[in-house]
Amino acid sequence: MKVGIGDDGAVLAAHEDNDLVVATDTLVSGIHFWEESSPVNIGYKSLAVSLSDLAAMGADPDWVLLNLVIREADSQWLENFASGFFELADRFDVQLVGGDTTCGPLSITVTAGGWVPKEGAITRAGAKSGDLVFVSGTLGDAALGLEVEPERMANLPSLSRIHRPEPRIRLGQELRTIASAAIDVSDGLASDLTHLARASGGMGAVVDERLIPFSDNACSLKPRDELLLLALSGGDDYELCFTANPSREKAIVRLSGQVGIPITRIGMISETPGFWLIGSGGKCKQYLGGGYQHQWAPDV
Amino acid sequence: MKVGIGDDGAVLAAHEDNDLVVATDTLVSGIHFWEESSPVNIGYKSLAVSLSDLAAMGADPDWVLLNLVIREADSQWLENFASGFFELADRFDVQLVGGDTTCGPLSITVTAGGWVPKEGAITRAGAKSGDLVFVSGTLGDAALGLEVEPERMANLPSLSRIHRPEPRIRLGQELRTIASAAIDVSDGLASDLTHLARASGGMGAVVDERLIPFSDNACSLKPRDELLLLALSGGDDYELCFTANPSREKAIVRLSGQVGIPITRIGMISETPGFWLIGSGGKCKQYLGGGYQHQWAPDV
Repeated sequence: MKVGIGDDGAVLAAHEDNDLVVATDTLVSGIHFWEESSPVNIGYKSLAVSLSDLAAMGADPDWVLLNLVIREADSQWLENFASGFFELADRFDVQLVGGDTTCGPLSITVTAGGWVPKEGAITRAGAKSGDLVFVSGTLGDAALGLEVEPERMANLPSLSRIHRPEPRIRLGQELRTIASAAIDVSDGLASDLTHLARASGGMGAVVDERLIPFSDNACSLKPRDELLLLALSGGDDYELCFTANPSREKAIVRLSGQVGIPITRIGMISETPGFWLIGSGGKCKQYLGGGYQHQWAPDV
Repeated sequence: MKVGIGDDGAVLAAHEDNDLVVATDTLVSGIHFWEESSPVNIGYKSLAVSLSDLAAMGADPDWVLLNLVIREADSQWLENFASGFFELADRFDVQLVGGDTTCGPLSITVTAGGWVPKEGAITRAGAKSGDLVFVSGTLGDAALGLEVEPERMANLPSLSRIHRPEPRIRLGQELRTIASAAIDVSDGLASDLTHLARASGGMGAVVDERLIPFSDNACSLKPRDELLLLALSGGDDYELCFTANPSREKAIVRLSGQVGIPITRIGMISETPGFWLIGSGGKCKQYLGGGYQHQWAPDV
């Protein structure tokens, strides 16, 4: 085993030139989605969250296992679930290779496997003091989606992110030779970046709150200081947060253009543990707000 | 992908000399175990059923993912669950490499990965007409355990099989060069052997009911004809049922001694589809009873 408990996925010795990466997530009705949500979206999202973990490792997704616990054999629900699931699976050429279906309270476990060149996986643990911190896309949209009325959400494409996050697969793969560490932002930037920094030899992170990227839609709905809290402590963004040596910044700007995804430098890794924010006045203070809790128990 | 949906596990191209095998099962409270069952046993069994799938493929188990949905953070329950889980994991040198823990109605998903020499996995699909059919151990004990009173079960070691099935890992590995097809008996012999025969080019199976092996404990509790029904249509035995060319019978007898597990020849693969029983009078009749339904929906 190259990487096990404590990272976004597990890396195992595999093909002579490849390591296997596996990642798994359980989505429970009432916690990760609403039971009455569109089954198309539930199907899409249940795969997206595991693919996002593979993206954060830099893996090329290959196969997936689907364990479905459903209350009753509702063929229309299942068909819609499958259409969302396979829309995403087909897009990334991921094959469903097993799983099971059981009767019970609705929950979905998806286990995805993929490959990286040997020793090539990006872990949380490689950041060095002085590395720059970057995020893909915009933050806080999903948490904002939870706050605004459902009817209004339907008219705001960017807020569909809570239902249909985009796994940053290609970006993750390109980052294998650029990033020193990466994580997917699923529990809020503060929590996830703190995890990354801590895993990298007990480091901390300093983020300039003025640099955190928000979508135009988000900015039209909320003042910036409220969006900041959503980005720091909201969940479900599924963007990549990664670190790199300052010498790689130009390569990252080029990569952003290549993959067509905005990438924003937001801060730096520091030897002082914790998550520190540089505010609008330029002062640096420790941010002690927690991450978004989908669940009350830590990942094993 | 070498083997995907429809077998005990998925086989994927991996190490130059190995194929990866992954298998996953979800156990739901009230369906696969009682919520008030000993958490030690729930932990043990949740891993055992996935390892049993790997055994049926001939795989050497390597790693496992654990997704736990539990109602509350009961540390005593979790500690006991873990002791049963890791007792078995340690015995087979299986490493827990990931998973998650979520709050919700109790269910457990275990995904196990292992390796076989390239092209060496035993599938359900390799049986030929005229191949002999064998089973390991004894059948019906677990289903019998469900019928007798709990107090009585506690005094009957063989009936503990419903809580603590033994994955036939070493046997499965040794069968890679002997068996033409294999399956683990989790839903009753009739159902599982029919699956195997059907997967092998639409074959059927003829079983001599007088040869089906029962434990001494089972024989002391029930007449043979009642045990027969438990073996055919009961669940949770987690023994291996496999087929082999008749020329391999001596090797199988030797193997039984080597691994210290009884192996019994019980029948033959035939070109006539279906599951056929040779009864006590020597007459052959088709058995139409179903398998044990843990669940109402088929595996995906």
